[in-house]
Amino acid sequence: MSDDRVEDTSAARPADEGRGAAEGVRYGYFGPRGTFTQMALASHLHSLGMPQLLDSATAFATVPAALDAVAAGEVDEVMVPIENSVEGGVSATLDALNARDGLLIRAEVLVPITFVLAVRAGTTLGDIEAVGSHSHAWPQVRGWMAANAPAAQYIPTLSTAAAAADLGADGEPPYQAAVCAPGAAETFGLTVLASDIGDNANAVTRFVLVSGPGAPPAPTGADKTTIMLYQHSDHAGGLLALLEQFAARDINMTRLESRPTGAAMGQYGFSIDFEGHVSEERVGEALMGLHRVAAQVRFLGSYPRADRRPPVISAQHGDRAFSEARSWLRSLRTGD
Amino acid sequence: MSDDRVEDTSAARPADEGRGAAEGVRYGYFGPRGTFTQMALASHLHSLGMPQLLDSATAFATVPAALDAVAAGEVDEVMVPIENSVEGGVSATLDALNARDGLLIRAEVLVPITFVLAVRAGTTLGDIEAVGSHSHAWPQVRGWMAANAPAAQYIPTLSTAAAAADLGADGEPPYQAAVCAPGAAETFGLTVLASDIGDNANAVTRFVLVSGPGAPPAPTGADKTTIMLYQHSDHAGGLLALLEQFAARDINMTRLESRPTGAAMGQYGFSIDFEGHVSEERVGEALMGLHRVAAQVRFLGSYPRADRRPPVISAQHGDRAFSEARSWLRSLRTGD
Amino acid sequence: MSDDRVEDTSAARPADEGRGAAEGVRYGYFGPRGTFTQMALASHLHSLGMPQLLDSATAFATVPAALDAVAAGEVDEVMVPIENSVEGGVSATLDALNARDGLLIRAEVLVPITFVLAVRAGTTLGDIEAVGSHSHAWPQVRGWMAANAPAAQYIPTLSTAAAAADLGADGEPPYQAAVCAPGAAETFGLTVLASDIGDNANAVTRFVLVSGPGAPPAPTGADKTTIMLYQHSDHAGGLLALLEQFAARDINMTRLESRPTGAAMGQYGFSIDFEGHVSEERVGEALMGLHRVAAQVRFLGSYPRADRRPPVISAQHGDRAFSEARSWLRSLRTGD
Amino acid sequence: MSDDRVEDTSAARPADEGRGAAEGVRYGYFGPRGTFTQMALASHLHSLGMPQLLDSATAFATVPAALDAVAAGEVDEVMVPIENSVEGGVSATLDALNARDGLLIRAEVLVPITFVLAVRAGTTLGDIEAVGSHSHAWPQVRGWMAANAPAAQYIPTLSTAAAAADLGADGEPPYQAAVCAPGAAETFGLTVLASDIGDNANAVTRFVLVSGPGAPPAPTGADKTTIMLYQHSDHAGGLLALLEQFAARDINMTRLESRPTGAAMGQYGFSIDFEGHVSEERVGEALMGLHRVAAQVRFLGSYPRADRRPPVISAQHGDRAFSEARSWLRSLRTGD
Repeated sequence: MSDDRVEDTSAARPADEGRGAAEGVRYGYFGPRGTFTQMALASHLHSLGMPQLLDSATAFATVPAALDAVAAGEVDEVMVPIENSVEGGVSATLDALNARDGLLIRAEVLVPITFVLAVRAGTTLGDIEAVGSHSHAWPQVRGWMAANAPAAQYIPTLSTAAAAADLGADGEPPYQAAVCAPGAAETFGLTVLASDIGDNANAVTRFVLVSGPGAPPAPTGADKTTIMLYQHSDHAGGLLALLEQFAARDINMTRLESRPTGAAMGQYGFSIDFEGHVSEERVGEALMGLHRVAAQVRFLGSYPRADRRPPVISAQHGDRAFSEARSWLRSLRTGD
Repeated sequence: MSDDRVEDTSAARPADEGRGAAEGVRYGYFGPRGTFTQMALASHLHSLGMPQLLDSATAFATVPAALDAVAAGEVDEVMVPIENSVEGGVSATLDALNARDGLLIRAEVLVPITFVLAVRAGTTLGDIEAVGSHSHAWPQVRGWMAANAPAAQYIPTLSTAAAAADLGADGEPPYQAAVCAPGAAETFGLTVLASDIGDNANAVTRFVLVSGPGAPPAPTGADKTTIMLYQHSDHAGGLLALLEQFAARDINMTRLESRPTGAAMGQYGFSIDFEGHVSEERVGEALMGLHRVAAQVRFLGSYPRADRRPPVISAQHGDRAFSEARSWLRSLRTGD
Repeated sequence: MSDDRVEDTSAARPADEGRGAAEGVRYGYFGPRGTFTQMALASHLHSLGMPQLLDSATAFATVPAALDAVAAGEVDEVMVPIENSVEGGVSATLDALNARDGLLIRAEVLVPITFVLAVRAGTTLGDIEAVGSHSHAWPQVRGWMAANAPAAQYIPTLSTAAAAADLGADGEPPYQAAVCAPGAAETFGLTVLASDIGDNANAVTRFVLVSGPGAPPAPTGADKTTIMLYQHSDHAGGLLALLEQFAARDINMTRLESRPTGAAMGQYGFSIDFEGHVSEERVGEALMGLHRVAAQVRFLGSYPRADRRPPVISAQHGDRAFSEARSWLRSLRTGD
Repeated sequence: MSDDRVEDTSAARPADEGRGAAEGVRYGYFGPRGTFTQMALASHLHSLGMPQLLDSATAFATVPAALDAVAAGEVDEVMVPIENSVEGGVSATLDALNARDGLLIRAEVLVPITFVLAVRAGTTLGDIEAVGSHSHAWPQVRGWMAANAPAAQYIPTLSTAAAAADLGADGEPPYQAAVCAPGAAETFGLTVLASDIGDNANAVTRFVLVSGPGAPPAPTGADKTTIMLYQHSDHAGGLLALLEQFAARDINMTRLESRPTGAAMGQYGFSIDFEGHVSEERVGEALMGLHRVAAQVRFLGSYPRADRRPPVISAQHGDRAFSEARSWLRSLRTGD
């Protein structure tokens, strides 16, 4: 996977890994420097009180490369984008997570997305014939571009930061401007022609921190769980039967994405986030129910919600109701 | 309750109760002698290889009296009718079971119902101005009576056997014929004017053997469970949510009866029989689910089906699917 | 059925039937005089401003006889009991309604039930060895009787009024006291030893007025509909699929009774009351849905609720939502 | 939108539009020439017996541009990709369809996807440092590329055909090989180094032909319907209530995609294909039900299935069952 790693940071690994949880961890992210993903990792490390670890984190050129590195044990935890409030799920991440065994989401980070139009010093709006950016970013600035540079052609790039990096380098990329994060413009020495050019002021991207196999982080009372579900066959009511496992326990889904299985047209799996932690009773029972009725359930982690908002759980679905029901059942069976 | 016991059989209790399960048990039934219920108890004792115990069984004048005697420990097990294929649930039994704590159904017996028209020697069809019988029996012979004795008036009695007993005794009951079981006519020395007078040749009554508190009998692979369910409130979909606990685990209901709670018009509980034993996984989970979402669940027993017919359980609802799901959940939680 | 009719009122039919709706109608009820059912008919006629029609109403000895008379056109409308808040559905009425084609419930009446202990003049509580009453009434006074006349035996009678009538007549009934309505004691010249002896102070019985075939009464905005439902087969989830037709349209059930079909043990139909009138959109669609998925749906009438309480209908299930959806569908189909 | 149209075909519009359905129609597609989408349009026109119309069809540089042209009346029908058996739904198409009023899908075409590795004459596998292709195509050849050209970098392009076109032109694109359709290699004069390099031999892409407002094509007995559904709010069971409208009528879904509404993280609409035509009873009732309970339903067309496979409809959900139920309801309401 070294061909996918855009900078060699192997020397940056801390010599002594025993000093603290985050300190000994080898981090990675979907790079290069300047991506929104790097910002998400920075935010995460800041919340852990270890901002300095960002410098030693490995940047990977693609999401699959980052996840391969975790699966191979080359790094411990990587940050990747999973869902955009405007463009939807990040297919590459969803599919890459599902294609590898034992990966676990351990945290999520929400980053507000603001785009700038960045150019080399001296370039004016009138000079711009083509604009480079990632294919997820372009639709988010389409309104602004149509109004301000209607003739500019779109050139896809591997990431928003890559568009900026190429423009900041010596070569001759086939575009005169990059749509990227403010930080990327700064990182690569570009001039910002316009800020906040996103059409949707509330755009947010959600990132997840992924590790190798292990126990999930402890429940915080405001957690989410991510799974991938496959139906036995594609019949009327098949998905319904799966979703009833959530509804019967009053478990709220916060994301549902269909992903083709690749086997044939119309065969889908479902990538689902829902409220709650695998250690909670109602979540455990729902997962066991899905395990019984679905063709396959892939558990991808339970982790604290970025917004720290606890779910509303009615008394009849709380842990206490479950443990009381279990005691009651035990007494019925023994007659005591 | 001694006023409800129609014959004193206290002396009949075996002195040594240690010789065998059935032998040491003090039995009772909804009597008097000659009822279909006594026939059900005879059938049960016969299947246990202890037919002689019928003689020492206590007959009770009403179902509530029989259940009171079990609740008070005066007898160990009583046979009572619970459901008739023509007339439906026996309300007195359902309500009496629900009104007492700790009673358990331990067995069920099916008895084909055949009625005879019994009279004192010398009485002819033309002499009959009125006919005595129980109010559950009369609708079952209404067609025959309309065709053969259209002018005969109906006089309700406490049981079919009571109608025969009074006719066989010295008094002057207000009727000249009894509709009763063949055995009752014989027991009380009556003449049978006509046999098999029931309008429905397939009529069957179901009886249950009820004991005090304790562990249910061991599962046989072909069992039934009886419960009483109360909803939290009377809203659209309330019953639906309860029934989904069965459907979600592919559990077949074999009887559903509504019974008013008595609190107000339109407030009902539901008396339910379903396939399976409380010791089975899918039944246990369904009961726990009901315990959480219903206002109250009253467990009335798990016991062998009279017809020995095992349920069809799909692989995904078998005990193995449940235990595999539990192992899987445990591994998710620990990360092992 | 003349053998079931307890008094000949054929001469009472009004000569001129054209003067008004109620005035020209020939009424009947489950008698004899003095029953709670007669009180229900009196209440209904009073609300129509025609109390004098009670005198000419025909009393029938049994519920089936009353319904037969309507089916045969001998009377136009009969009042029968259908549901008791303590004892539950009146099986005889439910089964008789289902066994006849074309009968329609046109109104319902709620009557609070209060029982008295009535005796011949001179009889004291100490003199009572046996008490006559209907089998639905006896369980409702069981507590009072156990406290005040514990030794008294119960003798079943055809109705509470019949118990009083026999005691008021010249014969020697096998009991010294009747449990009946206050009006019955008065009608038959008995002395009231104790009033309000019902164990449940809130006991209410619901009666329905049944006519022959025709259009239902116009909707009032606070109506009920009664149907009988038969499933295709007895499988897990069968009843669920039927009840979902109500839940999907937010239709509240106010009564659900199972009744055996008589074909075999465990085969049930369901007698159901629900909120709404057949002329309403959501009710019409639910009925059509049931017609498609049930083995049989028997429509037994839409009629004003006795309590005049209108249902709470969310905007999405109101008639307007249905007609808007229909217009929208039409535009999709035509492209206009 | 002229900036998006990659070739000016306005002169190609037929002068006389009256000669036949397809003949008078102005076609467009997501181009440039050589895309799989052009192949889909060729296939469609071939099935209509009008293959020559392909030459006059307008190629648009992006899917939104193609749909804008239809919405503006500049062309009559455009072919766009909607779903890939490996990569899933084409977000650009789904979002663009939902963002415009009055567009209707009139046909679907399935095209097996086979990729070639195309180069300029003389280039060998060893010369390839970078490969250009569309971001949907690249993941489908990732296995082959890793095995045969592991060092090659990926360069995103606007379409697979654009990668080939640039390589076939005079310029210096930043890559030495294109992954594209066999036809594109031929169109742009490239040499095919390897054929059938897709990792999934069964890869298929589904295309839809979209027109402006109007009535849907007539039902064929094997049709599909496409809608976009928005829930009222994001709560447990919200999607379930919508899906039950299909399940209750035994309607099979063939595709379910979630798409963010853009309003906030976690707010989704659902793009759904299901079996059946809007003119069928069960489909009409399901659509009306969704119209009532969903926040919004957007109808995007009923059209013949590409595979001509008719759905299996049980008797109780056929048009006849609906019309019988309607007749029955009418008779209940009128009493006739």
